[in-house]
Amino acid sequence: MGEVYFLESRADNRVCFDYFFRKIPYGGGYVLFAGLHELLQILEDLHFTDDDIAFLKTLKFHPFYLEFLKRFQFRGSVYSVMEGEVIFPNCPVLRIEGNQFEAQLVETLLLNFLNFESLVATKASRMRYVAGDRILSDFGLRRAHGPGAVPAARAAIVGGFNSTSNVYAAQLYDLETAGTMAHSFVESFDSEIEAFRAFARSRPHSCIFLVDTYDTLNNGVPNAIKVAKEMEKEGSLALGIRLDSGDLAWLSKAARYMLDEAGLSYIKIVASNQLDEFVIKSVLEQNAPIDIFGVGTKLVTGHPDAALDGVYKMSMAAGKPRLKLSETIQKITLPGIKQVMRVMNGTGQFFGADAVVLWGEENISTIYHPFEAGKLLNIGHYKMESLLQKVMDKGKRLSPSPSLSGIAVYAQTRLALLPKEYRRFENPHIFKVGISKNLLELKNSLVTYYQKPAPQ
Amino acid sequence: MGEVYFLESRADNRVCFDYFFRKIPYGGGYVLFAGLHELLQILEDLHFTDDDIAFLKTLKFHPFYLEFLKRFQFRGSVYSVMEGEVIFPNCPVLRIEGNQFEAQLVETLLLNFLNFESLVATKASRMRYVAGDRILSDFGLRRAHGPGAVPAARAAIVGGFNSTSNVYAAQLYDLETAGTMAHSFVESFDSEIEAFRAFARSRPHSCIFLVDTYDTLNNGVPNAIKVAKEMEKEGSLALGIRLDSGDLAWLSKAARYMLDEAGLSYIKIVASNQLDEFVIKSVLEQNAPIDIFGVGTKLVTGHPDAALDGVYKMSMAAGKPRLKLSETIQKITLPGIKQVMRVMNGTGQFFGADAVVLWGEENISTIYHPFEAGKLLNIGHYKMESLLQKVMDKGKRLSPSPSLSGIAVYAQTRLALLPKEYRRFENPHIFKVGISKNLLELKNSLVTYYQKPAPQ
Repeated sequence: MGEVYFLESRADNRVCFDYFFRKIPYGGGYVLFAGLHELLQILEDLHFTDDDIAFLKTLKFHPFYLEFLKRFQFRGSVYSVMEGEVIFPNCPVLRIEGNQFEAQLVETLLLNFLNFESLVATKASRMRYVAGDRILSDFGLRRAHGPGAVPAARAAIVGGFNSTSNVYAAQLYDLETAGTMAHSFVESFDSEIEAFRAFARSRPHSCIFLVDTYDTLNNGVPNAIKVAKEMEKEGSLALGIRLDSGDLAWLSKAARYMLDEAGLSYIKIVASNQLDEFVIKSVLEQNAPIDIFGVGTKLVTGHPDAALDGVYKMSMAAGKPRLKLSETIQKITLPGIKQVMRVMNGTGQFFGADAVVLWGEENISTIYHPFEAGKLLNIGHYKMESLLQKVMDKGKRLSPSPSLSGIAVYAQTRLALLPKEYRRFENPHIFKVGISKNLLELKNSLVTYYQKPAPQ
Repeated sequence: MGEVYFLESRADNRVCFDYFFRKIPYGGGYVLFAGLHELLQILEDLHFTDDDIAFLKTLKFHPFYLEFLKRFQFRGSVYSVMEGEVIFPNCPVLRIEGNQFEAQLVETLLLNFLNFESLVATKASRMRYVAGDRILSDFGLRRAHGPGAVPAARAAIVGGFNSTSNVYAAQLYDLETAGTMAHSFVESFDSEIEAFRAFARSRPHSCIFLVDTYDTLNNGVPNAIKVAKEMEKEGSLALGIRLDSGDLAWLSKAARYMLDEAGLSYIKIVASNQLDEFVIKSVLEQNAPIDIFGVGTKLVTGHPDAALDGVYKMSMAAGKPRLKLSETIQKITLPGIKQVMRVMNGTGQFFGADAVVLWGEENISTIYHPFEAGKLLNIGHYKMESLLQKVMDKGKRLSPSPSLSGIAVYAQTRLALLPKEYRRFENPHIFKVGISKNLLELKNSLVTYYQKPAPQ
């Protein structure tokens, strides 16, 4: 496609593309938008190396086109909601304006970053919601999709996690690391207590004893207590014990009781093993005294959903609004340059509706259902926020990227404005997304225009 | 853990670890083992850079330990089944022998590669099974888990795919590339036929027209036919049309009829849109004349399974067999150094049983159920193959890695030996995995030893 645009002298045509998704994962009520600032960094740096050009030459691209690629830099503009924003289906939350070549070239890159990080950040935020202020740590590297573990660790922080066991991701993104010992550590010693003592000698300030290698309550916890008491005499305090199998609610209560009886109420209980938001919610509803959750597979893979279904659709080309038709009416895209207005209720929370309007028509009082004729909602008496802001101009970011912890704080601030009905796991409220009258009319006129059959 | 091993002078202890998985994904009857040669390459190259050491210093590791890491190289040995082997639950298909430090350090790396590539290769092989000799192409980059798209493209080839739309992966692994045009390409022109003509002018030898942007049968296919006829006059032939929405079985038949009526029987039909093994099977059972399938999300994410649950468990330390106990009897690991024997039936196919034996006892005639007492199977009259071979000695591969196409051929050769009952999607036959009498006795004696409660 890029070569055709170049050879047909269309590469410089001005176009707009919108990023939006259609279906909320996990049966939830919202998506947390993540990946933006990593994407912007990459757009700034994007170029073809000599090796890349040499490889593309083997694919028999035109020599003039390869010369063009050698000089390529992304010089488009990006309008976006803030990273960490709470977003909803069919809302154009990011727009690329640029020439046709660059805007098309970055499609797959953009989708790869935004779809995956938003999927994981959303999952993480669901666990944060039920975990309260307990510590959540990403333990997913071993089950992640190869190097997908790295952006997953970042997205987990956006969604409210505290730390990661992925040291490479910690190095890359300046994250807090977390880790304990493995069963093999315990097994490699002739007895469990020898293993615990060795750990206490070498790392007295980061001791979390894994207590389920042989028998949690008959072996692991008694040995951990014995070594923690020995440590006290040496002037150091063990941090915790970790449960990695069995009934976490029951075992954590029994272990807590044993620790407290031994005067070790400062020792924390860490739980891991196939955790997700439902397990965390369940054990805490049973008053399990778990202080720290290590979450792996289901966090970093966004299970049970494979992917956020975000798409990137052309809305303008050569000065004209464009759309894609579909036999599925929900899949007809929104043409033109648009803004998203978030409606706020009287108490400063989200009212439960976004208005997609044409750029410049921020003052609207009625929104229309995008597919169902005649359905409308009066929003004229509510305050509204414009969500899309320009974040990149001609290939350069307009301001430095915020820190990841800053993004995470913003995400929690925005989630706090979303009424609880939209956050619950079972059949959450549906957040309404309507469009302005002008946008509806523009869309309808283009549908009529493109539905003409091809001339014979 | 590494620091403790180092400071406790245990880093040089000799240990063995086994890699195995417990649950077959997709409700299937087998797993295809992938990722081995990428892993071996990385083990050979593994080291800590100055930047890595500087980062680890901020985590307050001991200066002597950091000096030790600076000089680290993996010098262990690896025994493995061949990449592309058909493997089954609880069989130790790869063993690392080395010192305790190196063998532990590589755990997460090893799991990350083998779990994910085996998950995707297995998924790909299921699609290859139902697709016959039709072309399968990986279109998954936009929905993959970030850079996980790259090993996914490799694993798809191991499992029987032909090509990928991921040009970076193609460059890295020397894969065949494949791609068509996007809806935005069509939308960016004032009419669909102009878009098709532009593509035909610039890339006359790789024309696949996307026909569903506006109306597949009334617009897309008639325009594709018109342009293909114009191309014939210019001396070139269009390759295909692509259907990306709607009822693929019905639309492909209607499109095939229109193309054939126009004398364009050489034009192939490409289908994409949320494909997996079940959709491909269904459309082909309906005799859909589809020649090429572009498969995205469900291939590169292994949906509906999040991950292969492969684990890495210590089996020997300091000359003694080790195991991990569990209240779940199925999770008690197999101690000692082991070989896996594949039992072959009289016709040279897999008989349907693997025997896990102690290293050196290849000639056994009876295997025992690993958990259910008294269950045994006589296999003395069958031929057997030893599956584990040494592939790395003291950190160096014993032979260069085979080509990816060679691995893919091996995979298909082995899958062809697996009776069809194990390949079907619904309730496949269960491949038996038994253990030798000596291994069973070793395991039972260690279970008794470690179940003693801690002395008070």
